[in-house]
Formats: sequence, structure tokens, C-alpha cells
Amino acid sequence: MWDAIWTGARLATMTTGGAPYGAIGTADDPAAIAVAGDRIAWTGRVSELPGAPETLAHAVHDAGGRWITPGLIDAHTHLVYGGDRAHEFELRLNGASYEEIARAGGGIRSTVTATRAATEEELVASADRRLAALCAEGVTVVEVKSGYGLDLDNELKMLRAARRLEERRPVTVRTTLLAAHAVPPEYQGRPDAYIDEVCHRILPAAAEAGLADAVDAFCEGIGFTPAQTERVFQAASRHGLPVKLHAEQLSDLGGAALAARFGALSADHLEYLSEDGVKAMAEAGTVAMLLPGAFYCLRETKLPPIDALRRYGVPIAVSTDCNPGTSPISSLLTVLNMACVLFRLTPEEALAGATRNAARALGLQESHGTLEPGKAADFALWDIDRPAELSYRIGPNPCAGVVKAGRPVA
Amino acid sequence: MWDAIWTGARLATMTTGGAPYGAIGTADDPAAIAVAGDRIAWTGRVSELPGAPETLAHAVHDAGGRWITPGLIDAHTHLVYGGDRAHEFELRLNGASYEEIARAGGGIRSTVTATRAATEEELVASADRRLAALCAEGVTVVEVKSGYGLDLDNELKMLRAARRLEERRPVTVRTTLLAAHAVPPEYQGRPDAYIDEVCHRILPAAAEAGLADAVDAFCEGIGFTPAQTERVFQAASRHGLPVKLHAEQLSDLGGAALAARFGALSADHLEYLSEDGVKAMAEAGTVAMLLPGAFYCLRETKLPPIDALRRYGVPIAVSTDCNPGTSPISSLLTVLNMACVLFRLTPEEALAGATRNAARALGLQESHGTLEPGKAADFALWDIDRPAELSYRIGPNPCAGVVKAGRPVA
Ligand SMILES: [Zn+2]
Ligand SMILES: [Zn+2]
Repeated sequence: MWDAIWTGARLATMTTGGAPYGAIGTADDPAAIAVAGDRIAWTGRVSELPGAPETLAHAVHDAGGRWITPGLIDAHTHLVYGGDRAHEFELRLNGASYEEIARAGGGIRSTVTATRAATEEELVASADRRLAALCAEGVTVVEVKSGYGLDLDNELKMLRAARRLEERRPVTVRTTLLAAHAVPPEYQGRPDAYIDEVCHRILPAAAEAGLADAVDAFCEGIGFTPAQTERVFQAASRHGLPVKLHAEQLSDLGGAALAARFGALSADHLEYLSEDGVKAMAEAGTVAMLLPGAFYCLRETKLPPIDALRRYGVPIAVSTDCNPGTSPISSLLTVLNMACVLFRLTPEEALAGATRNAARALGLQESHGTLEPGKAADFALWDIDRPAELSYRIGPNPCAGVVKAGRPVA
Repeated sequence: MWDAIWTGARLATMTTGGAPYGAIGTADDPAAIAVAGDRIAWTGRVSELPGAPETLAHAVHDAGGRWITPGLIDAHTHLVYGGDRAHEFELRLNGASYEEIARAGGGIRSTVTATRAATEEELVASADRRLAALCAEGVTVVEVKSGYGLDLDNELKMLRAARRLEERRPVTVRTTLLAAHAVPPEYQGRPDAYIDEVCHRILPAAAEAGLADAVDAFCEGIGFTPAQTERVFQAASRHGLPVKLHAEQLSDLGGAALAARFGALSADHLEYLSEDGVKAMAEAGTVAMLLPGAFYCLRETKLPPIDALRRYGVPIAVSTDCNPGTSPISSLLTVLNMACVLFRLTPEEALAGATRNAARALGLQESHGTLEPGKAADFALWDIDRPAELSYRIGPNPCAGVVKAGRPVA
């Protein structure tokens, strides 16, 4: 017997090959989803159930005609950090020069200082406020990167804080070591020496402690070179960790192709991605992680090569990139709207980008991202008439409930 | 004796001439605000109170170090309408042509059809869901326009629905008759005949019923000409109603200068406003109402002439323009962020645009928009360290409470 069943639903299963959104059920011929333990046991039309719901499951819930989607997945965030950058935001808009902001301690360095000064408990508490906003909008899996510690102790502190968010909310946390995010002040002018530290001390320690599910780097003119990035990837490979990359955000250094060579889970940002990069990603099965919140905040005008990504069949994911500098956004629904409005994704592509393809970007495609028997029973109920409403409007939160690992949590 | 006092606060009074944000109080030397009836009775530092708070007021609230701002004012909305346009949004992103969308009943006409088909009660209920999102973010005054009825009965139905929102939420509603929003299907090709109907039947009836606080029109190539707009303004003047105008959104027809000639409360949108228009507005005291949500949704690239507006001292307001087609947004805080990110307003200008200058755009500058003794005791409490946070981030709602007409409501 199943543990629970939701009837009277319309399912956006987000599986491919069938109806748009992998939809099952209509207002007149509704669908149901059953769970056993923490897994999905059955999906289909109520009319196809092998018996009356009451005889099939211990608990019967009426979805009341609501849509049910997979739990949303925010697969690229910097959710854990100390301080914020509201003051810098204001200084900049009041016309302060780059130097004045730097003198006022602005930029990523201010976040590094605040993150190092914060206790693990403080990092958990401040990240939890942002996570609460994500979870209220149906997020059940979140990726969290390090990258504001930039030394052994503080990078591990960030990753432990990220892991501990699972104790606070009904959410699965996937951690990514992003020690190669920026050159720390102690290594100013010696980036290769810092990369040594990352490869030989920080990364091995994170791997040994089981604190990192993946490894990331910032490959950019103002970040690390492709050669430095490659050294980080080699170290990750030695420790059996998958990689991903901040690539082609501000210029084309060939980072996405480099990532693809290492079988990267995803290459992220990609505004300046070339067609060769698209091809390399397609061949490697690397996900294109689009971050329209950063595009918006930076008033970028160069669009990622969406048509080429479609043409070559590269899976497209969409995430908040929640961070204090270039995307202080913890509303995944708002970012889905930005993906449609600014990047011209279709509402179905945007939703796939926060479910099926976001799962793939985390290596979770076997267990998450679609509503299919055997997958995790993570899903969200929505007060909407059609799935496009999830990306159409900004403001009211249509999330009417969340089920995590088979249990209703909101 | 006062009815209530909030101590332990930091006040952003939004009055001019003093500290940024008209701030009173610091973390170490906090401020207080007292109310008597539905009015503000006193503002200042706790240390300047003429006695112990308990001896001065019946109820003493500890603001806990929170910031208090005037209740936010969303002074340009189309909050009341039938249906939505999510399907059209999706069709368009899937590449449907203008003709295909028109055939599918898209565009403003679909909203007119759905609004006419809706009962007054249905309009109240659907608008209330959007209003709930606004109020949750500290909005205590909202303007609502008609303009999807486009005949006598349906325009009045919309205005009655707008007024009735005051029964649902702790909010002051200001109604605007926007019968001259589009040419209704019955008058296709005969816009002047429709303007006759507006001037001689709809507007007089709305005025007589006391259902309109102001009159608006859509002056644009795809809307009404300046000559037609002027006839509407003359009719408004005959009935003693102030005017405002959708002007210079897509082209420069001189609408803002026309509005200024009629002493308009505001001219709204203004992306294509000329320096002559700015001058005319400055002389008339007409508020520049910026609507960055529509700018964002339309992917407009022409910015309103912000520097000229500053130079000539035109008061700048900011609103959601909440409507189903070009700004399906009911988060005023998100729009303040857009005003900063996209229009480069400072956080203080953005907040003034949703308080002091928004009040002026509604003719409520004597009673609303700042925290001053004698004004309405409408204010919001915020979990923030500095006012810039209200426009810095998108996602978590920092509103920790609202006081409407002297009474805590959330
Ligand atoms: Zn990032
Ligand atoms: Zn409007």
C-alpha cells in the first residue's frame, strides 16, 4: 500500500517526449501522484488508478485542481556569505568611483572579510533567511558554493554551514567548492601560488571531509586563467569530484570547452560563449547554466547564444546565482521571469531549467527533476491555471504547498 | 495622552532638507513615533520624549531597532482586471506572430473581454490577490485605474470594485477613470465618437457617482491623439477632477506638456520625454511617474531623461504599473530595485518615489508620504540595517509589520 496519494491534480511531470511540460491530467480528467516512503510510486490519471484512492494509500490528499510540478531546484547559488553589499549598491548609485568603493571596503573583498569574520552559526542563520524565501517558492534542492573564505578554514566553514542548512529546512543541499573564486588578499599578485594552495590543501581537505559534491572555479580575465582552472580541474579529478565552471560571463576564454573536456556537469553564465564552445558542451553533455539575475543586475546587453544551445541540443538550466554583489536575488520564480523576458526562453524551457535540467547540472538526473516513479517524492503544488504562470508574473507567490521526500511540509 | 508609541526605532521620515532619507535616530540613540487617533502625533529621538513612554501613551511598542518608513504608495496600477495574459505570454515566447496572437484573442482586447465578462465581485476577488502581495510589502495606499471596461457600465463596475478593495485590506484606494485607455470594439475606427462617449457620458457619470478621484488617458500613436486627450482633460476640468496622463512611453507626442498645461498631478512612463516636456512639468509641479516594470517587460532600451528631471527639480515617483499585459508585477520592492538597476535612481530617490512623491502624484502630499506630525499614521516596519536594502535585493520580504491609520495590522 502506498503511503499517500494526491488526487485532483494536474501534473507537469517535466518528462520529455510527450505533451508540453510532460503534462498529465486536465481539469475534467484529473491526475494523481502517489508516494511510497520518500519516492514517487505512481503517476497518471485518476481514472487509471487500479482502485479507489482510499484503498490504495494510507493518506489521500485532494489537490483541488492545482498543478503539481517537481520541486524546484536552484542549482547555482552563493547562498552562504557574511554581510551584504547594500551600502556599496547605494554608494555606486550615488556616483562613487571604483576607487572610492574600494576604499570603503567594497567589492568581493568586503564579502570575504565579512564571511571570514562570521561564525559558522552566523553564516547558517543569515543564509537560512534567504533559503526560506527560496523554499517558500517551492525549492526543494539547492546548490551552495563556497568562495568567500579563500583559505582552508574559512572555505570548509562555508561548506559546513551549507550542509547544515538541511537541518533548518526541508531541502537537499549540494555543496560546491569554489575556492578558486578570487585571489585572497594574502596571495595578492601570486595567483599561481594560491592555486597551489587550492589544489594541494583546500581541495583535498574538502574532499576528505566529504564536504564538497563538486568543484567550481571562476575562469575570467578578472578571475583565473584557463591554465589555472585546468590545474583545479585536475586536482578535482584526482579526488573523484565532478567539476563545473563560471565561464564566458564577461569575455570568451574558452572556459566552457575546457570544462567540457573534463566532462563538467555545467558551464555557467555563458554570455560570451562561442559556437565552438556550444559544440563542445553538446558533445560532453555539459549543461548550460543561465543566470539572468546577474545579467540583469550588471545591465549586460550581450545575450547567451540561446539559439545555438537549442540547435545543438545543450540542456539549459536557470538559477538565481544568489550572491551579495551581482545577483542579490533569492526568488527563483522572479529569475524564471527574467529568463523569459530577458533571454526569451519559453515558459516551458524556463521551468525545465529549474527542474529537469537543474537536476542534471547537479548530477541528480537519475533521482530528481521530474515526476516519475522511482524518483524522489519532491514536489510543489501551485495555485495556477497553467504552468506558464510560474514565469509570467512577479509578485504573488502561487506556491500552495510542498512535499519533500514524500512528506507535506508547507 | 497618545494612543500608541513605537520606541527603539530608526525613522526614515522621507522629509527633505535634513539627513538622507530624513532619518531620525541611530542604533545607539533610537527614535520614536507616536500616534493619536489615525494621525502621527510626534516623531523624534527617544531621548527627547517629554517623559517616560509609558506615561505618554496607552500602548508602547518596541520596534526592536527596526527601520520605520512611511507606508509605501503604489500610485499607478491597473490592479482590477479580468483574466490574465499568461497564455499570450507563452504564445509570444513560442514564436507566435502578432496575427496569431490577435486571432487567439490576445492583447488588451482579451483583457477587455474578460473584464466585461467578470462580475464586480469576481473583479474584487482577483484584484485582492494582487493587492495582498502589495500590502505584504508595506503598501498602505494604492491607486487603481479603470480602462478595461470601455463602456459606461463596465468602467463604473471597475471603479466600484476598486473602491471595495478598501473593505478587504488596510489600504487607502484612490481611483482613476481611464476610459480613454483604448478604443473599444464597438467604436473600432471611430475614436472621436468614443471620446464623445467618454466626455459626455462615462466621465460625467463617474464624477457624479463619486467613483473617480482623477482622470487619465493613454496618449500615444497606438492610443489617443493629443487633441483627443485634451478633450478628455477639458471634460475632467468641467467636473472638477484632476488629471494625469500615460505619456511619451513609445514616442514623443508632447503629452507631458499637454498634461502640465492642465496642471496634471503626474505624467507617467516618459521614456521619450523631451527637455521641453521636462521644463513644462517642472513649471506645473507635475510629478514624473516612472514605471520600470513596463520598461523591463517590454525590453525597452530608451531611458527616461532622469538627469533632466533631476536638473529641473521634477519630483520623481515610481510605481508597479501592475497590469496583465506589459507589467504583470505586484511587488513594489522589486520595482524599486528595477528603478535603481535599470534607471540608476539612487535608493533614496527610489524610496521617495514610492512615498513622498507618490503621495504628490495622487494629490495626497498634505496627508501622506512622509512621517510628520499631523499626517496619516500609515507606516511600515522593516527588518533591515539601512534603507538601501529595500531596493538592493529581490526575494525575501523584509516587512516586519504595518501600521494603518494608527493601528497595527500585520
Ligand atoms: Zn556564481
Ligand atoms: Zn499604466
